[in-house]
Parts: sequence; structure tokens; C-alpha cells
Amino acid sequence: MNGTQFIAELLGTAVLLLLGGGVVANNILVKTKGYGTGFLMVNFGWGFAVLAGILVAAASGAHLNPAVTVAFMADPHVAELAPGIAKTAGNLGLYIVAQMIGAFLGAVLCWLAYKDHFDQEENPAMKLGVFSTGPEIRSYGMNLVTEILATAALVLFILMVPAKAPAGLGGILVAFAVVGVGASLGGPTGYAINPARDLGPRIAHAILPIKGKGGSDWAYSWVPVVGPILGGLLAVLVHGLIA
Amino acid sequence: MNGTQFIAELLGTAVLLLLGGGVVANNILVKTKGYGTGFLMVNFGWGFAVLAGILVAAASGAHLNPAVTVAFMADPHVAELAPGIAKTAGNLGLYIVAQMIGAFLGAVLCWLAYKDHFDQEENPAMKLGVFSTGPEIRSYGMNLVTEILATAALVLFILMVPAKAPAGLGGILVAFAVVGVGASLGGPTGYAINPARDLGPRIAHAILPIKGKGGSDWAYSWVPVVGPILGGLLAVLVHGLIA
Amino acid sequence: MNGTQFIAELLGTAVLLLLGGGVVANNILVKTKGYGTGFLMVNFGWGFAVLAGILVAAASGAHLNPAVTVAFMADPHVAELAPGIAKTAGNLGLYIVAQMIGAFLGAVLCWLAYKDHFDQEENPAMKLGVFSTGPEIRSYGMNLVTEILATAALVLFILMVPAKAPAGLGGILVAFAVVGVGASLGGPTGYAINPARDLGPRIAHAILPIKGKGGSDWAYSWVPVVGPILGGLLAVLVHGLIA
Amino acid sequence: MNGTQFIAELLGTAVLLLLGGGVVANNILVKTKGYGTGFLMVNFGWGFAVLAGILVAAASGAHLNPAVTVAFMADPHVAELAPGIAKTAGNLGLYIVAQMIGAFLGAVLCWLAYKDHFDQEENPAMKLGVFSTGPEIRSYGMNLVTEILATAALVLFILMVPAKAPAGLGGILVAFAVVGVGASLGGPTGYAINPARDLGPRIAHAILPIKGKGGSDWAYSWVPVVGPILGGLLAVLVHGLIA
Repeated sequence: MNGTQFIAELLGTAVLLLLGGGVVANNILVKTKGYGTGFLMVNFGWGFAVLAGILVAAASGAHLNPAVTVAFMADPHVAELAPGIAKTAGNLGLYIVAQMIGAFLGAVLCWLAYKDHFDQEENPAMKLGVFSTGPEIRSYGMNLVTEILATAALVLFILMVPAKAPAGLGGILVAFAVVGVGASLGGPTGYAINPARDLGPRIAHAILPIKGKGGSDWAYSWVPVVGPILGGLLAVLVHGLIA
Repeated sequence: MNGTQFIAELLGTAVLLLLGGGVVANNILVKTKGYGTGFLMVNFGWGFAVLAGILVAAASGAHLNPAVTVAFMADPHVAELAPGIAKTAGNLGLYIVAQMIGAFLGAVLCWLAYKDHFDQEENPAMKLGVFSTGPEIRSYGMNLVTEILATAALVLFILMVPAKAPAGLGGILVAFAVVGVGASLGGPTGYAINPARDLGPRIAHAILPIKGKGGSDWAYSWVPVVGPILGGLLAVLVHGLIA
Repeated sequence: MNGTQFIAELLGTAVLLLLGGGVVANNILVKTKGYGTGFLMVNFGWGFAVLAGILVAAASGAHLNPAVTVAFMADPHVAELAPGIAKTAGNLGLYIVAQMIGAFLGAVLCWLAYKDHFDQEENPAMKLGVFSTGPEIRSYGMNLVTEILATAALVLFILMVPAKAPAGLGGILVAFAVVGVGASLGGPTGYAINPARDLGPRIAHAILPIKGKGGSDWAYSWVPVVGPILGGLLAVLVHGLIA
Repeated sequence: MNGTQFIAELLGTAVLLLLGGGVVANNILVKTKGYGTGFLMVNFGWGFAVLAGILVAAASGAHLNPAVTVAFMADPHVAELAPGIAKTAGNLGLYIVAQMIGAFLGAVLCWLAYKDHFDQEENPAMKLGVFSTGPEIRSYGMNLVTEILATAALVLFILMVPAKAPAGLGGILVAFAVVGVGASLGGPTGYAINPARDLGPRIAHAILPIKGKGGSDWAYSWVPVVGPILGGLLAVLVHGLIA
């Protein structure tokens, strides 16, 4: 993985979080134009956020998600992490570092874009909700199951995108997968389905001087990291049955 | 139909039901993040659930639906059930078995993903609604008509997808058809439009130890089986006029 | 225009009205699952109804709309009405006859699909609303202007669909145009933007034994016929500036 | 830039504002069919308005937005403003003039399409809201930041659209980007992300004899001009890191 590829992966993930965090902010923070529009706007917002990240991170193959990178590493049917990027531990690490920095950066930019709304919002839970996911019914075991299943569906989808799809169409397919997985399996936990998407912004939430913020809910933070990684590996197992 | 094709058809249908059941759960079970979002989210959720099933079941041609398989068998303008899968009674049976097992499995996974929400939901009708369809106005004759017309529209659409559509685009076309048929003709019966999608999960509902569940409404269960099969055959007749 | 092409145009328009009328029924008739979902569902429903009509009417080039056929006739940059269908008065007439019969037939099928809901609906205006459009503020002159502008935007879009778009993508482009024109310019009159779409179902409304129906609002019926035709011709004029 | 290209750019931007303004009118003016449908309809309406503008302005490469034109001028990785249109100050000026006239014209047409609804609407802020954007929390500095970030995301996306995308798909990609940027970053300011889109209609608002209109909020008018230009240039800088 060369420098341009590293920067591309980082920036793609930053765009993903700027837009993905943004659509949640628009839905739940006070005085926004989209306040209370609802879950379908959030689903489409994240889907097209992924589409934007995919285009921006073209140079690195646009994983944007450690669960995808780990799955590609583990899947014997995937030859390289991306064209020209070999399956080495070093490259695996570089992807994850780029994704984590990018997710952190995107969360900071999202906070800037909605700064006044963060300042006027009185509920700390809403502020955290823009950065990171949390369960509606706290039950770590079942929350983990939900994240595993949702990520498995997403990663299996990604592994099955036709290699012959014309340029640009693969990104649309994955975007629709994200819309669908979010609408379908986002109900219990808010579909992190991506460790970097959840942990990077959670660190940003902990560090940034957000007015009136509460805690960063570290007790839950392992679920959206472990669940997606396990889900990605489950997808690899299933992929082996049909590849 | 070889083993990989059988597994692919089964897994594609499982993904269809995991995501399709999921979006209903997200819309109607208590304490979900998408609670009450509305019918359009359900429509898009099912559409992209079909898209996911289509990608996963690429090896088998992704029927995912006995009404499609029966229609392909009956249509003289369709040469094979899928590339390399001949139109034999054995293959017809294998498709339907794979679809039924897959739909059952997907419904079980969906129940796991929303387990806590099923447990806290007090209305048995909502629980059944995640698994299987039911009419808003119970009137078996007219419910059958609605299912026939909706399935005919869907199967005719599938029969008319351009053979030259680039890889990946055919799936998007069918996904949009499912969104559209659901939004347009799902109002009276909830658009089963697929016998496996309705009967497989209904069996799962009957078997699973779902807390506080009610009956599985077997009195209605024949409508979403017979209607879609007749609708698929109607589409074949119409297809003959324009093929 | 041969017999298959005539039937294709007729059936494509029937599917358009079955699905397009259906999504309105689902949104406004009592006891439907989509009751009150809102205008965006209606927009997507009509968009994907057009997509279905386009696939079904592939043999005739899928005009589905007299405003499109008249515009193609009038536009010197359009060589034929469809591949192999010459620009003759006879063919123009056949297209319009096929579209009118198809729209009538589709409205009848839509009524059947929602029969119980029509029967239980008490407001005659809702019943008519499933069949034909009507203005929110009755003002024939301005209603006409709105229909002209909306149809001009749609037909200009259709005239500009890239000839090199891959198979299947042209239909998606037009479907998105219908979603967009509906969301944007459907507010005042409900966007007939198609004389057959409005007049065919209005005749069906007048003839069918719909329980508790009111009048068919013939006073308004000329607006969604004349407006779209003028709008299509306006699009031809504009097309001439950039073709 | 020749005359046809100038007219195409002008008409494409006019269609953009006719449809884009229209969807806002449908959402916020009294007695429309889409009244109160919500922000997601507005997002899709603007996205498909851009798609329509892209098709109409094919001859000029469909910038439709001075921020795009300025970014293309500034980006050393972009060889021409459009195929056959060199990067000269004269062509830059012609693009912007065409965009401004087009945006003005589109706003006038939108007003005509919704004339009766403008007349019956009593709130002047709603009338202005159809023409131009305004912030929910007035804070010029942060409003500027939001417009910079939103436009940077959009222009970076446009710069990264794959050159090999098939005809018609590039427009869909950009349309989805507009839907996404609007849903995600439109919350604070209503996402002008285009100086012509905001300033042209604001001039129209000031000039047109709109019944009961209030002021045109010139105090804010510089933000949606300066912000998008800076955002486009920021995108060029970021593009340099990954091109």
C-alpha cells in the first residue's frame, strides 16, 4: 500500500463519516432542517455516504471498513486486498490505521458542520448518537448477534458484487446494500457494521470540546468492533460455500 | 442443479428473508430505531433484500421464489431455468426445496437479530407480521386477486429484463420492481408475491419458541401460496403476447 | 406498427396504470397498509410503474404517453417513433389508441386489486383520486401552466436520454425523471403529465360499478389532456435549441 | 464555448431550478399535494433535478454550478472545462453567466408552476424559502463552514466519477451524491452548494411581483456564494492528494 493509497483510504473514510454522521445529526439534533425526518433518510444518507467514500477511495479499493479488510484477508477466494495491494499483515495494518484516522477526521468535520446545533442541543445522548451507535435495548449478547448478522449480510454482498459490473455500478450496488442492511437490521443497534465507523468517532467524541457532552459509553464500545469483525468472518465462511 | 447451485439458491433466499423480515421488524416491533418509519422504508427494505438475494444466489440464477421458478418452467420463451440448469421436474423441485429451507432459515436469523424486541413486544399480531403476510380486509377471494395481480406484474417484469443489461444492473432493475410492486399493490395483503417468502417463515413462526406468540393464521396461509403461483402463470400468458 | 408492438404498448400502459393507480390507492384509501405514507411513496411508486411499463412495452419503444408520441412525431431530431416504426399519422393513431385502451384496462385492474378498500372507503373524492388527477386549487389556467411545465420537463428529459446508455439504464433514468417531476411539480395538480394516464382511468371511473362513487369531474378533464400535449411540444421547441 | 453549449448550460440550470425550487414549494407552500412530506422528498427532488439538468446540458458538460466550473478551472488534473471547451477566462465567464441566467429563469418558471400556492401562502419566509436558502441558526461563520464542507464533498465526488462509467450512469452517480449531501449536510443551511442556485433565484425573488413577499435576505446572500466557491477549491486541494 503506497502513500496515495493510504491517503485515499483515509479520505474516503473521512467522507463516509462526514456524511454519515451528518445525516444522523440532521435527523436528531435540534433546529436542523431535517429534524425528525426519520430512519429512511438516515438509511439513504449512510448509503450515499458510502458511495461517496467509494469514489474518493478508488485508489485503495475503498474498503472503508476494517471488517471488509479482515474479510478480504481471510477469504481464499480474494486474491489481493485491492489491485496491486498484497495480502500482508503490514497492508492490513495500514488499511485499519487509515480507516481509523479517517473516521476520526470525518467525525470532527461533521461536528464542525453542525457546531451550532451541537451547542444548542441539550440532550447529551443525541450528541453521542451523531458520533457512535448504541443499542435501543442494552443486551450485549444479543446486540453482538445483531451486529454480526448485519455485517455478515453486508460483507457477503460485497464479496458477491459481479466483477464485470461496469465502472461506477459496483459502488451503487454497495450503496444500496448499505441502505438495505440499515433499514432491515439497524433497528436494534443502529448498524455500526464497521469498527472504524464507530470507534473512530467515539474517540473524537471523547476528545473534542463538545459543549454539554456526556460520557462516551465505553462500556458498549467493544460490541460494534467485535461484532462486525466476526460478521465479516462469518461472511467469508458462507462465501466459501458458493464461490 | 448441482450442490453449489442448490446452496446458493438456499442462501440467497435466506438473505432475502433475513433482510426482508428485518425491515418489517424494524417498522413494527417496539423500541426499534425505525419504529413507525412507514411503508416506504418497508418497500425499499424488501427491494434491496431482493438485490442482496440476487447477488448471493448468482450461481443458481437467483429465482428466490417458487412463482418465478414455476413461471420459467411454464414459459416456452425461457430456454433453461438458469444457465446450465435444464427445465426438469427434478430441478423444479430442488429450486422449491432450496427456497423453502432458505426462507425458513432467514426467518430464524431475523428472529435472532430482533430477539429482544420480539420478547418485549406485547402484540402477537406484530410478531406474526414480521414472519408472514396477512390481509387488512380479510376476504380470501379478493386477497387472492390482489396477490395474483401483484405477482403477475413482478414476474412479467422479470421476464422482460433486457438480456443485454450489464452485470449488476439486472438485479437493480428487479429490486426497483419489488419496491414498486410493494408500494403500489402491497396495500391490501402486504405483498407476499412469493410462496416461499410467506410459507417458510410461517412454519418458522409455528415452530420457534417465540415469547408470547399467537397463532400462525393457517387459515390464510394458502392465499400467498396459490396467488403468486397463479400470478406467475398469468405473467407467462401475457409474456406470450409480446415475446 | 405491427400487432405485437400494438399489444406491447397497450400492456405497458396497462401495467403503468395498475401500479401507478395502485400506489395512490395504497396512500389514500381506507385500511390499506400504506395509508397516509405520503407523497414520496407516491412519487417512487409512479416512477417504478413507468419502469415496469418501459420493460413490458419494449417492442413498441414504450412511449406509454400520447404526449411523448406527439412530441416524437413533431421533433425533427427524432427519426422514427421507435426502431422500425415510421412517423405516420396511422402509427400515431395506433399508439394513442393502444395507450388509451391500456390505461383504461390498467385502471380496471387497479380497482380489482383494491376492490374491498374502494367498497369501504366513504369519500368519493378519494375513489376518483385513484383513477384521475385533480387540482388542489382549481384554476384552469394555472393548472394548465403547471401541467405544461411538468410535461415539458419530462419529455425534454426523455429526448435527452443518451443513445449509448446500456440496456436497462435508459428505463431507470426515465423512472428517476418521473420520481423527480412528480416530487417537484406534482404539488398543484397531481402531475398527470400524460393524457392517457388521466383520461383512460377517468372513463373507467365513469363506467365501472364503483360503490358509492361520485362524479368523474369532466369539467377538469381537458386540462390533463391539453396541458401534457402542449408541454410535449414545448419540449420539442426547447430540444431544437440544444440538439 | 459555442452558442449551443451556452444555451445548453443555461437550460440545464433552468431545469435544475424549476424542479429543485419546485420540490421545496411542494413541501412548504400551502395546499400542495406534497405539503409537509419532509426533507427526504426534498433531497430526492433536488437529486433528480440535477439529473435532469445533467441530461439537458449534455452539450456543455453540465456543470450547472459556478463552484464546479471554478474547481475545474483550478484543478490541474482536469484538462478541459468540457470536451472541446478550453480552460480560458472567457469560457469561465460564459459558464457562470449561463448558469446565473438559467437559475433566474428556472426560478421564474417554478413560481409560475406554483403561482396559486404562492398567492395563498401567508408566510413570506416560505415564499423566499422556495427561491433561496437560509440558515436555521444564523451564524455567518459557521454557516460558511457548513457550505464549504458540503460543497467540498459534492465537488470531490464529481471529480472522482469514473471516466469509464457508461453513458447515463455518471449522471445517476452525481444525482445520488446530491441526495446524500443534502440529507447529510443540508440540516444547518439548506445546502445551497451552488452560487447560481442561490443567487439567481434570490434576484428573481427581488424582482418578481410575488404577492405578499417579504425581503430577499441580502444580508445572508454572500454565504451561499462564497462558501460553495471555497468548498470547490478545497475539493481541488484534496483531489490533488489522491489523483
